[in-house]
Amino acid sequence: MSSEGEEFTGIERMGAFCDGVFAIALTLLVLELRVPAADIVAREGLWHALGGHWSSYGAFALSFVIIGIMWANHHSLFRYIGRTNHVFSMLNLGLLFFTVLLPFPTAVLATYLPSPEARTPATVLYGANLVMTAIFFNWLWRYAIKGRRLLRAAADQKLVDHVTAATLLAFVSVWISLGIHALLAAMFLLPNKARS
Amino acid sequence: MSSEGEEFTGIERMGAFCDGVFAIALTLLVLELRVPAADIVAREGLWHALGGHWSSYGAFALSFVIIGIMWANHHSLFRYIGRTNHVFSMLNLGLLFFTVLLPFPTAVLATYLPSPEARTPATVLYGANLVMTAIFFNWLWRYAIKGRRLLRAAADQKLVDHVTAATLLAFVSVWISLGIHALLAAMFLLPNKARS
Amino acid sequence: MSSEGEEFTGIERMGAFCDGVFAIALTLLVLELRVPAADIVAREGLWHALGGHWSSYGAFALSFVIIGIMWANHHSLFRYIGRTNHVFSMLNLGLLFFTVLLPFPTAVLATYLPSPEARTPATVLYGANLVMTAIFFNWLWRYAIKGRRLLRAAADQKLVDHVTAATLLAFVSVWISLGIHALLAAMFLLPNKARS
Amino acid sequence: MSSEGEEFTGIERMGAFCDGVFAIALTLLVLELRVPAADIVAREGLWHALGGHWSSYGAFALSFVIIGIMWANHHSLFRYIGRTNHVFSMLNLGLLFFTVLLPFPTAVLATYLPSPEARTPATVLYGANLVMTAIFFNWLWRYAIKGRRLLRAAADQKLVDHVTAATLLAFVSVWISLGIHALLAAMFLLPNKARS
Repeated sequence: MSSEGEEFTGIERMGAFCDGVFAIALTLLVLELRVPAADIVAREGLWHALGGHWSSYGAFALSFVIIGIMWANHHSLFRYIGRTNHVFSMLNLGLLFFTVLLPFPTAVLATYLPSPEARTPATVLYGANLVMTAIFFNWLWRYAIKGRRLLRAAADQKLVDHVTAATLLAFVSVWISLGIHALLAAMFLLPNKARS
Repeated sequence: MSSEGEEFTGIERMGAFCDGVFAIALTLLVLELRVPAADIVAREGLWHALGGHWSSYGAFALSFVIIGIMWANHHSLFRYIGRTNHVFSMLNLGLLFFTVLLPFPTAVLATYLPSPEARTPATVLYGANLVMTAIFFNWLWRYAIKGRRLLRAAADQKLVDHVTAATLLAFVSVWISLGIHALLAAMFLLPNKARS
Repeated sequence: MSSEGEEFTGIERMGAFCDGVFAIALTLLVLELRVPAADIVAREGLWHALGGHWSSYGAFALSFVIIGIMWANHHSLFRYIGRTNHVFSMLNLGLLFFTVLLPFPTAVLATYLPSPEARTPATVLYGANLVMTAIFFNWLWRYAIKGRRLLRAAADQKLVDHVTAATLLAFVSVWISLGIHALLAAMFLLPNKARS
Repeated sequence: MSSEGEEFTGIERMGAFCDGVFAIALTLLVLELRVPAADIVAREGLWHALGGHWSSYGAFALSFVIIGIMWANHHSLFRYIGRTNHVFSMLNLGLLFFTVLLPFPTAVLATYLPSPEARTPATVLYGANLVMTAIFFNWLWRYAIKGRRLLRAAADQKLVDHVTAATLLAFVSVWISLGIHALLAAMFLLPNKARS
């Protein structure tokens, strides 16, 4: 019960569990997309009523892409890891916590992006969630590779360094997506009358 | 970390992730089926009140069958694929995006199919989602088989050609289901007073 | 790509997909349990307000047990099957359809079991869903074992006969659970004033 | 069809099913986090409106950690088990029942923790669910290890004893989390005017 193969089964099952959580969080995002109300549709037509929810579709697409990329990164990271321990499990649980939470700031952003007063706190909340995700993601990986602590014996050091650079990139991409936010918010500094 | 076996583990886990997303999208559809309101049930009885939601059941059944068939096709497609790369992952994410989105146009269709004015845009929205799914599905497969780029070495070319024909068929079947839509819509051109 | 091992991978992945659907349908049931409204809690206290939702808890527990048992049966059935074909896939999709649908009649039953007029149609609807599930379950199995059509070469005929008897039992157990329904309904023929 | 390998496949698939249920229950928790209403946001600002839902975030975090730990324990427990039987399946279904149910008392706790009258019953309900989970968890394990009934032949007795102590600890940790509840409740004995 203590060979590398056995340990690897443990990490495999943890990876499968995380995949499940990513897949569910990704799919639950659609539940925040609401069917337009009948009275608005009767007044403005369905296309106009749907168009009024543009911030929901934007937030859905953004969060979908973020969770999708996070899954892909998590997936490639786990291929190099051969063992798990208590600290690693806790860091991974922290990462999942902010992943599972993401549909909530997504819904807040979708609702309050069109509102001039609430737009900034909604964007900050969403961004804070992304930053926490990126922190745990980097922490997890750095903990695992410190002195090759949890790496598989066969893990090629050059590939490991490549993943390290990629997780840094993921961190940067959070800032890029925050930049997109800022841009969206800036667009709203122009006068507008939309208010969902 | 670079043998065919290792790569195949990557594609296996991607396939399992997609299976999870398909399974969740399929099951979430039921959340759009609403229990009839107490006052309508008191006035008309439960059967009548349920019957008033016929468009919900129709949309549920249609989307269930579409996601089910898409899963089966995706599943058989992945059996021939032995490697993944960045482009393939992105195309697959695009396919998942429109799959995860499907419960939303389903809910719109279920709500506005009985409404003479909103019926057409609701059907077009639903159809557009199906078309996007079919486009990504074909794109994914054609990208993978171009010069046997991502095929398993053992993949029999005759079987691969068979799958190519089948994905074309899937594309056609989208048009058939759109035809069923059109038919449903046409039925409504007959005068009716139902309005949920 | 045509050995028994390869085919078995296909059936394995279909089994895993079904497991996912069962697990999600099982877990989604909890979404129908509503937090009691603040005004009722203020007036009657939380325990009383919770007690007023007894039919929700009963329906939740009943559907949980039914999906749980269905999963266990499906699981043991798939252990004897070594191949899949188009008809088998369609029958399995039919079984999943009524499994995925179950949370809906569960919610209807939970809402209208306390109502003397709507209780009978709600029970019939729920029962009809169970009957459809049982029919597809038996159909699936009988199709697979006809002339050992889709059985694994190693499948012991005595064990196969045992499973056949067990699926029949599952069919009977539907009637038993319908009997429990009838009993619940009968209890309500006694005068009562509860009305949620 | 009767070697240890074959049986182990059965327990593997049961473990995967449970993983799925844990992952879904964990992720569904986010659906209870509601976007603050537009009128409260307009009056108090988004940060204040979000702050008014503190009990939702606390309940979310607590239940997330509990299900996460339960998954980790369940996972390590299943590594020692090589066979399943009917009693074990039923005990496991009991454990899953209270796991799947947890989002409901979580929502009740989130809603009524700020209310001085309803706070105690809400906490008792939540605690009762945790106690039931801990009971089934211990029962399951003790049943499996009784005379090494369902253990894998290779399972090291010292490690088994270690897990037994750990499940006892899980039981104790329920009482610790109940203590945290009590503390939260006690904090409320101080006069407060918050009422969501």
